[in-house]
Amino acid sequence: MTPQEEALACAQRARQAARTLAYLDTGTKNGALLAMAGALKARQAEIMAANAEDLAQARQADYRQAFIDRLLLDEKRILEMAQGLQEVAALPDPVGTVISGSRRPNGLELAKVRVPLGVIGIIYESRPNVTVDAAGLCLKAGNAVVLRGGSEAIRSNVAIVEVIAAAAYQAGVPQGAIELIHSTDRAAVMELMRLTDYLDCLIPRGGAGLIRSVLENAQVPVIETGVGNCHVYVDESADLDMALEIVFNAKCQRPGICNAMETLLVHQAVAERFLPLMAARLVPAGVELRGDERTRQLLPDLAPATEEDWATEYLALILAVAVVDDLSAAMDHIARYGTRHSEAIVTSDYAHAQRFLEQVDAAAVYVNASTRFTDGGQFGLGAEIGISTQKLHARGPMGLAELTSCKWVVRGEGQVRG
Amino acid sequence: MTPQEEALACAQRARQAARTLAYLDTGTKNGALLAMAGALKARQAEIMAANAEDLAQARQADYRQAFIDRLLLDEKRILEMAQGLQEVAALPDPVGTVISGSRRPNGLELAKVRVPLGVIGIIYESRPNVTVDAAGLCLKAGNAVVLRGGSEAIRSNVAIVEVIAAAAYQAGVPQGAIELIHSTDRAAVMELMRLTDYLDCLIPRGGAGLIRSVLENAQVPVIETGVGNCHVYVDESADLDMALEIVFNAKCQRPGICNAMETLLVHQAVAERFLPLMAARLVPAGVELRGDERTRQLLPDLAPATEEDWATEYLALILAVAVVDDLSAAMDHIARYGTRHSEAIVTSDYAHAQRFLEQVDAAAVYVNASTRFTDGGQFGLGAEIGISTQKLHARGPMGLAELTSCKWVVRGEGQVRG
Repeated sequence: MTPQEEALACAQRARQAARTLAYLDTGTKNGALLAMAGALKARQAEIMAANAEDLAQARQADYRQAFIDRLLLDEKRILEMAQGLQEVAALPDPVGTVISGSRRPNGLELAKVRVPLGVIGIIYESRPNVTVDAAGLCLKAGNAVVLRGGSEAIRSNVAIVEVIAAAAYQAGVPQGAIELIHSTDRAAVMELMRLTDYLDCLIPRGGAGLIRSVLENAQVPVIETGVGNCHVYVDESADLDMALEIVFNAKCQRPGICNAMETLLVHQAVAERFLPLMAARLVPAGVELRGDERTRQLLPDLAPATEEDWATEYLALILAVAVVDDLSAAMDHIARYGTRHSEAIVTSDYAHAQRFLEQVDAAAVYVNASTRFTDGGQFGLGAEIGISTQKLHARGPMGLAELTSCKWVVRGEGQVRG
Repeated sequence: MTPQEEALACAQRARQAARTLAYLDTGTKNGALLAMAGALKARQAEIMAANAEDLAQARQADYRQAFIDRLLLDEKRILEMAQGLQEVAALPDPVGTVISGSRRPNGLELAKVRVPLGVIGIIYESRPNVTVDAAGLCLKAGNAVVLRGGSEAIRSNVAIVEVIAAAAYQAGVPQGAIELIHSTDRAAVMELMRLTDYLDCLIPRGGAGLIRSVLENAQVPVIETGVGNCHVYVDESADLDMALEIVFNAKCQRPGICNAMETLLVHQAVAERFLPLMAARLVPAGVELRGDERTRQLLPDLAPATEEDWATEYLALILAVAVVDDLSAAMDHIARYGTRHSEAIVTSDYAHAQRFLEQVDAAAVYVNASTRFTDGGQFGLGAEIGISTQKLHARGPMGLAELTSCKWVVRGEGQVRG
């Protein structure tokens, strides 16, 4: 079987499963999720053995330690994956929810009802926990899933899917609901992205390069996720103590996540007071600062920030800093370089807060809070499959509802159109 | 200026306009819509003169009468276009609606708010009324629009946009909110479909060929509209009088629309009674019937329906007819050949009705009513920009809400993530 044939076969099995999965009852789905969680724990030795082979190969190939860390599965991480499935089981089932409804003047009864999307393709990189998260969320929302993980994690992913799919099918989920493409050949993923007859959407999860590649090559509709070049703007009227806490948190609490701040914008009237405080707080925490000309007048030790810096999602302890004339200049900078992910203003001026919230175009806009809150759990969605930075279908953290579509159900008693 | 340069310039002006249009107040938008309606009526002579040139060329090119009918603008049609704008002005503004909201345990105040999509590209064919409908709906939902109509209607479209855009800009709408690509070169539309930095989505409106071409060539996300290979299934338990009215209505009331029935499926147990009644009603109305083998045993005069017939959206007074074993066979046929638009069952069996509604995968599923109701006006949405047959973002008739996205607005008092 060629890689293309394998991708097609996976997608066909998933499409077939989706037909019955669409109306599988909640109890069976929840039972399957709990069975999957139990199987992960019961069969963790198999999974860790497969993971050890992936790790050995990664060490041989001389990957960075951060990469190896992401790849690693130990008892604790397997337990976390199992707990994730239990949490998804506890969430309300979105399928069948009536979104809206009415009785038309001619007596037709209309209900707009949530239904699964159908078949979802997930294309991701090295973290094997995505395999479990994505399978669990797709299943709960009534979707079949075709998984395509990174080649470095292939043995781990094969072992995980063997364990969770077997448990799910035994619990009454139709065969084909959880498919993993085993081929690590690029031809398989290229084929997957073209299978418009079998897939309803693709969700890429990973770095900017992966997402760009999927957007460029896919014929199947894509939900763009995750690239976050996020800004914090410290306004003239900001409480500078609060600003310091927010800036520190947005940059340092977990710099590798897409909702971390990458550029700090400071109003010129407070730059002289704020920038030295900021540097004194962030530099000892290991942050490398890069500044525009006005910033470097106040903090002469900084390296200059280039055009490329303003456009870069570092995902690391690096921060670009610019002094701006006013709110308008800050918003212009954000409009030019932002990726429409998460943007924050720190201010005590009501009108400025309102203007920023209204006029900044991003999935999440904040007043006086850290950008780090853009997250399905923090927003109360329970769990997330990713953070959409596009405007169609879903924007911001995507929970179970974002993995569904709708259907208009119309009940009549013989109505015809006049 | 090359066609590509023109497309780019239109999209750039639209993107610029979208930045302020996004938060333009409802009063200004409604005032502009009414001004556009007034201008259409006041300047109808200009529009009809331009339309006369399009018509003359179409006649010379020997287009079919139906085509020329669609192209024609007379006083009545211009008045209808103006009334359409007035109706859109009267609809509630979707922008700013709070979709959901909560206060998080840490005190963060969250609101998920409706915002415009941004810039919408509309690619359509010969009917110039689409120009006005699309411009009005996009404006009301706070979007800039880039219009690209068919070359046969180019003079009409240029005249219409000159009239409505001037009226809108005079009423306070930012310049660039209503852009029309004047070049009829294919290169212009090919370029438009690639402008991912400037367009948020593309909506093709027209026949299956146009839609396929946009889906294949676009890099900008597409909302697929309109192809409807719709079925009516007459169940064993159907009230045959009701079935006859529904079948007649679904086929004959307006056969050129995507929600008209294209294939009739009849349970074998009632075929002998129902098919002759059906033929006696539809054939005198000018419907050409094509049947499968079992149908032709009962109605020997019919031409045979081929594999191609089952897959064809006729948009004409032609009907393919098949006798099926039971509900499951009917649903299998629909799953195989349907385009997930509108599907109906006529039945008096409760369990069959429920099963059909649950298991048939389509934008609209009906019990005991004509498929012809799948329409924004009929569903109470006020007006529609098209009927989505995809599952992402919108499904079924798309009104103003479907021309919006959302934004998470987060108000804090210094919260940081622990």
